[in-house]
Amino acid sequence: MSKITSAEARLFNLPLAEVLVDAKHGDHTHFQLITATVRLADGSEGTGYTYTGGRGGHAILAMIEHDLAPFLTGRDAEDVEGLHDAMQWHIHYVGRGGVASFAISAVDIALWDIRGKQRGQSLVRMAGGASDRCRAYCGGIDLNFPLPKLIRQTEGFLAAGFNGVKIKVGRPELAEDLARAKAVREVLGPDRAFMVDANYSMSVERAIEAARGFAEFGILWFEEPTIPDDYKGYGRIAEETGVPLAMGENLHTIHEFEYAFADAHLSYIQPDASNCGGITGWLRVAEQSLDHGIPACSHGMQELHVSLVSARPNGGWLEVHSFPIDAYTTRPLVVEDHMAVAPDVPGIGVTFDWEKLAAAHDGRA
Amino acid sequence: MSKITSAEARLFNLPLAEVLVDAKHGDHTHFQLITATVRLADGSEGTGYTYTGGRGGHAILAMIEHDLAPFLTGRDAEDVEGLHDAMQWHIHYVGRGGVASFAISAVDIALWDIRGKQRGQSLVRMAGGASDRCRAYCGGIDLNFPLPKLIRQTEGFLAAGFNGVKIKVGRPELAEDLARAKAVREVLGPDRAFMVDANYSMSVERAIEAARGFAEFGILWFEEPTIPDDYKGYGRIAEETGVPLAMGENLHTIHEFEYAFADAHLSYIQPDASNCGGITGWLRVAEQSLDHGIPACSHGMQELHVSLVSARPNGGWLEVHSFPIDAYTTRPLVVEDHMAVAPDVPGIGVTFDWEKLAAAHDGRA
Ligand SMILES: [Mg+2]
Ligand SMILES: [Mg+2]
Repeated sequence: MSKITSAEARLFNLPLAEVLVDAKHGDHTHFQLITATVRLADGSEGTGYTYTGGRGGHAILAMIEHDLAPFLTGRDAEDVEGLHDAMQWHIHYVGRGGVASFAISAVDIALWDIRGKQRGQSLVRMAGGASDRCRAYCGGIDLNFPLPKLIRQTEGFLAAGFNGVKIKVGRPELAEDLARAKAVREVLGPDRAFMVDANYSMSVERAIEAARGFAEFGILWFEEPTIPDDYKGYGRIAEETGVPLAMGENLHTIHEFEYAFADAHLSYIQPDASNCGGITGWLRVAEQSLDHGIPACSHGMQELHVSLVSARPNGGWLEVHSFPIDAYTTRPLVVEDHMAVAPDVPGIGVTFDWEKLAAAHDGRA
Repeated sequence: MSKITSAEARLFNLPLAEVLVDAKHGDHTHFQLITATVRLADGSEGTGYTYTGGRGGHAILAMIEHDLAPFLTGRDAEDVEGLHDAMQWHIHYVGRGGVASFAISAVDIALWDIRGKQRGQSLVRMAGGASDRCRAYCGGIDLNFPLPKLIRQTEGFLAAGFNGVKIKVGRPELAEDLARAKAVREVLGPDRAFMVDANYSMSVERAIEAARGFAEFGILWFEEPTIPDDYKGYGRIAEETGVPLAMGENLHTIHEFEYAFADAHLSYIQPDASNCGGITGWLRVAEQSLDHGIPACSHGMQELHVSLVSARPNGGWLEVHSFPIDAYTTRPLVVEDHMAVAPDVPGIGVTFDWEKLAAAHDGRA
């Protein structure tokens, strides 16, 4: 028995180098990182985390401090999956997705960090160990970039060693989206992976029209064409256009993923361990994706997902997100020959530089 | 233009007279009331609220304070529905149900309070005005009550002027549930309304068996037999047993209600304005229910829902919940000839006794 003595949460409001814009979330000036550090009676500890685009962090912090920490204290840290389920039931009435999923995710990742350190195992090994590396692409948050800047960004991604690029779409006129997609494909050449992401800004009808346009530029997938709640709408877009669809960053419970697998006709699934129940939640989605023959990709926090995507027999593409969480860790993402390489240390392999975080934290916002 | 100058949230942790137990939430010793008071530049104000079974209140408070209040300040309070939708988009990434729905609900109800006061209209009139009263039943939280106490509670409900009673089910042995249902039906006699509520504690198979047992006692509905996420499971229970089903207290977005109406084969819908997006959210569900020919009932906070259920052409049964929020208002629920009577004053008709709330607040828990 490894008795939990405390779970401490911290919130950091971290400025972005420039204002980032997508079709639905408006201007991003900061992102929020919420860490959860779980300590045991034997003195060992683990740290997990979640993040937001700048809103909701205080609610996540409050839920960890007031609802999860008191619940965890005195319990056995070894039963990670049991604690995951128990937390879900503990806050079920205000839960089943949303803030509760973010809060549980941070704690669950901390428990996996402890598990790995206790076992002397890396996350990539604990999660299945199929490989030590995975494909990776850069996801721009660039809907407001003028075309020359979008092209420079793409060239920069290639220069940094990546062979896959995703851009935002959902400009007021579809013709603008198509012109931008065309220009980026020309920079990429015919063989590199290219994805587009509408951040659920389109109606099903508009998305069908857009998908047909994007198809001309050989996209690997069309991400979140319409609202994540409309699983059957996704199904219609896929069936009427034949264009591969991807989603997952806005699915927060195993049941939402079940509906997506059943009705949305997806070609890629993109769970985010920071908001789908942590590593326990991500691995359950990955198991489902294996049953459905769909590659398990990721959204955000590449420094952690690199271990999960690499570990799976059906691992897909790792998103290298524009929120640079890994810049605040002791091991920013490692890329070799276009592939992202998982850390080989006991635990989750993500160690924060607390001084750097404290220095960057913008307490006003 | 009625410019919003502030939105102030407060949290009260209110003790229950005794420990209340259901099949899934464990022991209730307190409930949390979270109020939101919106003030305008002209000095007018309105107050809305939400509540929980004792968990998540601090997260709801934090979301109103840190995410919704800054967003609302400076906006026009008159466009209540527009603000509702704008709040949903503002916190979409951490939202779509859960804590976000509770926080938006409290603010939305405050905006309706302002609207009613400005127009000089009661909530029952603004919401449709079909009647000034509605059917009402008492919902016990009584799974741990020994049978004699359960019978005394039932007799007390009848003595208080009600002609409908709901009890909790989901005891370890189905035979216990059936014996308790039989005893309560005997107290009620054949003509009064009788419902049972499993708080989603059963598998679909167990619920089918239980439904067939409860049918013998002439139940009006079987509430939340299984997890709210399993819409098709509800459909199976209804179709295989013919027993009328009810749910809604755990559906937090309009999309969840859409799936429930499509797949769950419900006979009654029970939206709770405190967690489905406030009065705006409740009325949208009520519109859907009209399209599906299903009576619009309610869950919790009877002092407010009495106006909504009474107002609708397809109004069903008002739940008189065991969390006595109305005891902290200037007008506890009024019942005449078994019917609950809506308040006839401008605004939502719920005015808190702030001194009583402050005196009862348990700051330790
Ligand atoms: Mg995306
Ligand atoms: Mg209930």
